[in-house]
Amino acid sequence: MEPVTIALDAMGGDDAPQIVVAGANIARRRYPHVNFLLYGDEQQISKLISKQRGLRDYVEIYHTSEQVADDDKPSQVIRSGRNTSMWLSLESVKNGTASGAVSAGNTGALMAMAMIQWKNLPGIDRPAIASFFPTLRGETVMLDLGANISCSARNLVQFAVMGEVYSRTILGIEDPTLGLLNVGTEDTKGNLELQKAADIIRGIDFSGEFVGFVEGDDIPAGAVDVVVTDWFTGNIALKTAEGTAKLINGFVREAFRNSLWAKLGYVFAKHSLDKLRNRSDPRRYNGAMFLGLNGICVKSHGGTDALGFATAIGVAIDMINYGGNQMIAEHIAQLNIGEQSE
Amino acid sequence: MEPVTIALDAMGGDDAPQIVVAGANIARRRYPHVNFLLYGDEQQISKLISKQRGLRDYVEIYHTSEQVADDDKPSQVIRSGRNTSMWLSLESVKNGTASGAVSAGNTGALMAMAMIQWKNLPGIDRPAIASFFPTLRGETVMLDLGANISCSARNLVQFAVMGEVYSRTILGIEDPTLGLLNVGTEDTKGNLELQKAADIIRGIDFSGEFVGFVEGDDIPAGAVDVVVTDWFTGNIALKTAEGTAKLINGFVREAFRNSLWAKLGYVFAKHSLDKLRNRSDPRRYNGAMFLGLNGICVKSHGGTDALGFATAIGVAIDMINYGGNQMIAEHIAQLNIGEQSE
Repeated sequence: MEPVTIALDAMGGDDAPQIVVAGANIARRRYPHVNFLLYGDEQQISKLISKQRGLRDYVEIYHTSEQVADDDKPSQVIRSGRNTSMWLSLESVKNGTASGAVSAGNTGALMAMAMIQWKNLPGIDRPAIASFFPTLRGETVMLDLGANISCSARNLVQFAVMGEVYSRTILGIEDPTLGLLNVGTEDTKGNLELQKAADIIRGIDFSGEFVGFVEGDDIPAGAVDVVVTDWFTGNIALKTAEGTAKLINGFVREAFRNSLWAKLGYVFAKHSLDKLRNRSDPRRYNGAMFLGLNGICVKSHGGTDALGFATAIGVAIDMINYGGNQMIAEHIAQLNIGEQSE
Repeated sequence: MEPVTIALDAMGGDDAPQIVVAGANIARRRYPHVNFLLYGDEQQISKLISKQRGLRDYVEIYHTSEQVADDDKPSQVIRSGRNTSMWLSLESVKNGTASGAVSAGNTGALMAMAMIQWKNLPGIDRPAIASFFPTLRGETVMLDLGANISCSARNLVQFAVMGEVYSRTILGIEDPTLGLLNVGTEDTKGNLELQKAADIIRGIDFSGEFVGFVEGDDIPAGAVDVVVTDWFTGNIALKTAEGTAKLINGFVREAFRNSLWAKLGYVFAKHSLDKLRNRSDPRRYNGAMFLGLNGICVKSHGGTDALGFATAIGVAIDMINYGGNQMIAEHIAQLNIGEQSE
């Protein structure tokens, strides 16, 4: 494998820079051909690196004392935040020093900075954020989850093309199935933009297969590999699913505390239930990909730990190694969707 | 209590008329002051009634051989379906023979027929469907879940007023909390209609409290007693939650089959886990209320059993006994929202 350089915003996230440095060391062992550029407070970072055995040889530190706060407005930081660890890590991708960037910081600021610095891939009107949804069959790619509060048919079509490539690249699914999220599966359901998008996507020659409209319960069931939707709907679906999972897990825990018999039952079933918990460990699904930009940027959950941050780094590395962005650009160019859809 | 007469579409639902007749008998025992008008195939219904001890004295049968099918188009049945059990049961409410109607049939047809026959309550532009969402704290009322694919600020404001009354009436919550579903809690989140709706609702003098925007995970957490949204978003949230619950329950079941130890653990914990299952039994939450119409109509889930159908009948009875529709009409009139919101 070619060596890959990843720029890390060392100051982004609830427990930065600790989890960023520790996460880099986990990723380094998983991907031996990777090295890192770390942007942030040099003194803090150096101290942390010295505690991570073997990491020193794989990192370069670029000092900056500025960083983006979680409540900073994107519109402001794109003007005043050009010395922040976030901006500088994205800039290293723009000037070719790094092949991709990972940050656990402010999502809106990160997207705004990436859009301004990198611009969109040719043929893409608006970037989208793709994330993983744990399902019965494994995991499903869902987009958009953070960039576009409402979408035109043309946006949704482009998201479908990007999601198809992303699912092949990151999940290694050869012929992914795609669905457009709606309130019913019949052609006449939903609003006009959804119906128009479905019509256009149906005409695209994917290596995967467009199954048409899917409903909310199809997402956790894993009915398709890629779920295409606007951010508003995607956000509501994802958060409702997270809340429901938390609710039921709470009920189950409570059930085991109900009686002495139940507590005894828990002792016997513990090993099995622990395996179940591992299976739905959110750290395994960490890493939201910004798709449609002239660069690779992965947003890690702000509250993740080192293991979760390493997963997000892995998403960036896979996308780089498989040339995901080139594939998206080629597909969009071949399909000529830009002109078909208007 | 005053005697209450409920019209039942005996032919609607997967297992009609069996579950309708058996459900009526369960409801009759729960609410001794209730009697029923049953619309449908007299021969079938009579035979079923003879098997339900004590029900005979509480029902009148109105024969019709016509019924609405699940795949009938609402636009068609409102013209050609005027002898169906569904139409006739709604008509008995219009002419005052019954105080409310319950059907487990085609939702779209039922709403279209109710709108045409009954018209809207004064001051209501569009009716909404309200349903229950099981939560950590009990249950939350959510609307709209079936009538309006997209909503203006004015619609959402009216839904808030109706939801507040409904929650007080049916769940008996004195000062319900209300939230508007959005992708974040800050005032600037979401689209303009949502922001405008929030502004207007904030100015209303509820007996309850409007907490502002809520997110997807707030629904299962029971953060508010009433969640206001459009049908598209509500449908996606509800179905994603149902799918997630099914997924996790499946995982838990699987975990208990994993090993001999886990199976043994299940034996000990069974009683506790069964209680958990009862708690989230969908039959306990059956009955979607059509709000904003000049009449009481409850839609039962098509696949429910007698116990679930009896719950739906109970929802109609409570709404009638507490004068829910009068309260909605009064509140809308007092608030004068119609003029404020445009």
